[in-house]
Amino acid sequence: MAFDPSPVREQFPILSQKVNGRPLVYLDNAATTQKPLSVLDTSRRYYEELNANIHRGAHHLARAATEAHEAARETIARHLNAADPAEVIFTAGTTDSINLVASILTISGRIATGDEILISALEHHSNIVPWQMLCERTGAMLKVIPCHDDGTLDQEAFKTLLTDRTKVTAFNWISNAFGTVNPVREMIDAAKAASSLVVIDAAQAAPHLAIDVQALGADFLALSGHKVYAPTGVGILWGKREVLDSLPPWRGGGEMIKEVTFAKTTYNDLPFKYEAGTPNIEGAIALAAAFDFMNGIGLETIHEHENRLIRKAAEGLASIQGVRLYGPDDRAGALSFGIEGVHHYDLGTLIDQMGVAVRTGHHCCQPLMARFGVTGTTRASFAVYNTDDEVETLVSSVDRALSMLR
Amino acid sequence: MAFDPSPVREQFPILSQKVNGRPLVYLDNAATTQKPLSVLDTSRRYYEELNANIHRGAHHLARAATEAHEAARETIARHLNAADPAEVIFTAGTTDSINLVASILTISGRIATGDEILISALEHHSNIVPWQMLCERTGAMLKVIPCHDDGTLDQEAFKTLLTDRTKVTAFNWISNAFGTVNPVREMIDAAKAASSLVVIDAAQAAPHLAIDVQALGADFLALSGHKVYAPTGVGILWGKREVLDSLPPWRGGGEMIKEVTFAKTTYNDLPFKYEAGTPNIEGAIALAAAFDFMNGIGLETIHEHENRLIRKAAEGLASIQGVRLYGPDDRAGALSFGIEGVHHYDLGTLIDQMGVAVRTGHHCCQPLMARFGVTGTTRASFAVYNTDDEVETLVSSVDRALSMLR
Repeated sequence: MAFDPSPVREQFPILSQKVNGRPLVYLDNAATTQKPLSVLDTSRRYYEELNANIHRGAHHLARAATEAHEAARETIARHLNAADPAEVIFTAGTTDSINLVASILTISGRIATGDEILISALEHHSNIVPWQMLCERTGAMLKVIPCHDDGTLDQEAFKTLLTDRTKVTAFNWISNAFGTVNPVREMIDAAKAASSLVVIDAAQAAPHLAIDVQALGADFLALSGHKVYAPTGVGILWGKREVLDSLPPWRGGGEMIKEVTFAKTTYNDLPFKYEAGTPNIEGAIALAAAFDFMNGIGLETIHEHENRLIRKAAEGLASIQGVRLYGPDDRAGALSFGIEGVHHYDLGTLIDQMGVAVRTGHHCCQPLMARFGVTGTTRASFAVYNTDDEVETLVSSVDRALSMLR
Repeated sequence: MAFDPSPVREQFPILSQKVNGRPLVYLDNAATTQKPLSVLDTSRRYYEELNANIHRGAHHLARAATEAHEAARETIARHLNAADPAEVIFTAGTTDSINLVASILTISGRIATGDEILISALEHHSNIVPWQMLCERTGAMLKVIPCHDDGTLDQEAFKTLLTDRTKVTAFNWISNAFGTVNPVREMIDAAKAASSLVVIDAAQAAPHLAIDVQALGADFLALSGHKVYAPTGVGILWGKREVLDSLPPWRGGGEMIKEVTFAKTTYNDLPFKYEAGTPNIEGAIALAAAFDFMNGIGLETIHEHENRLIRKAAEGLASIQGVRLYGPDDRAGALSFGIEGVHHYDLGTLIDQMGVAVRTGHHCCQPLMARFGVTGTTRASFAVYNTDDEVETLVSSVDRALSMLR
């Protein structure tokens, strides 16, 4: 029997909003998800009952807040199947996490002229620009795995591009623009066989798939809280302990130090070495609550439900004349489409007036858009609370908008 | 007539908590403040009514969230009297802000061997370590303005240390450890006269003083949301437009770019150039609400009230045998003290059992503690909601604890 999202929807007050007198159909989940009451209540309770700065105080609240923060790290470590909670670094989000990795690799002196950084044609700007900056500062060269017309990566080209010069291979698990699910396990194995460090952008995978960092075998994995039903301003960098231990710190400040003198400073152990300053304490605790929310439903249930909706949406949209779907049939999370002779912005604006919230534009993937010869697409993206009715509204709204635009 | 904090206290549910059956006396405000209902409600309302990713979407919620986020930037710009809201960069906190400045200066190539970075003996690790890292990477040398026995900076030494080699002068406005209020205006003038860039750590000033960045004349000013009644995970870097415009970006990713191709990326204008990725949207909006909360009471009222309490606490504690107060008489925010023959940790633990939350230890100022020959102090720090009764409880609890420890 199909999963019924109605009870889950009650956890999301924002979903009962009306736009222009019509029910909001929120299909912009790849940009950010809405937050369940269990997460919002966790944040609120933190401030009403526990709030204090952590790791530094002997008083009652400081101890309670520290315990809650570190319990959150353990919950997140279990969710990712990390070997050690110390491998879970709290950051401000995926972008911050990837910049952390690129920056410490730059500073480490391990990357030099002639080395190569391998990314993919499907990457979000956050997994392109930090590597371009690294290349600029180290003399390394950026290489790009091309993609096929169906929005999947060219695995043959990948194998050719992987050489002993490849120092870092960085790619997403699921493409935010097209919903392409990359064969991460195989790609990680190939990159590791070539002795490359591997960085996985899991921003779009984390909302939809179970993550087992030990089974994956990458060196780093980044995700954002706000895309997995948690607040903005918090994210995770998971990193293999021996790799993180061997790299220099990035941000300097309180908590990341062992001892400071003006002459010399020594650094703290993981995870604190990479957590300078007061962290987003509330955010970390709320992120753990968000994973609890997801696990309460079950990752498989979430994924199956979303996949059913995305297939239904793909079928519905494909039946409309002139619609081109991007990405392969077995996409996850996001469904991107274009319509002959219609600008994505005009379409988005019209269906917004019908209550349907989708994203239009380049989805922070300008190189991918250029590869497909477009300035942008219209993207519907799905979460556990979306319904069959909403998919039908999406399709009928696009149809209606087209009759107005053509 | 003295300010009565009772109505304000009703805004802070956590303050009615009991610890060991006794009313919580929260005097750890320099570590983090508690949050008023107006701020908590703003955060909650954001998620129940507005939440969407910003700057990228044409749909109703995306526009509303973007407007709320940019209105928050304008509120904050007004609070700081910034010439332009684009000079207000959202960061994860003061530590992140200072690291941003130190990193872009490092990357800029403007600092070289033989150059000097001038900080003060009163700095928090977050205003020491980033500069040590810069020095390590650029060959510059770290110089330190010494302090007198009363915890004020040696202004004569400062003038001698300022030379044409001084490329950056970075110091706090108020010391988090001792509550020393530095003569920032005069110090900034002197540093600017020496053609040095000036970075002000306003983490401890922002909760207590009105800030006018144009009148101050520094180049950068950093503060944390969580120390001014706002949530954790958000902070501000204010920077002079022409200085920020002349410096390279730091984190790469979405929103901070103008155009990305694999061959070349161009960067966005201020403030977005320094705001890669999805920001802490809720945090920014809540930070504006926190400044509204403070301005609703009035910065002068807050400052006078806290000063009255801190003087009363100083008098009370000074009357206890063996107590040594650190810092000058006209301190603000924080009051640090030590007691002959008593370890700060033991004292803190005992008064915690009496409900009094203070901070003990090095306060992320190990070099300052070393300068005074101690491993730490006990620090009581004040916010607008503290009361005369709480000061009396602090003093009597310290007195009682000492009778148990001696």
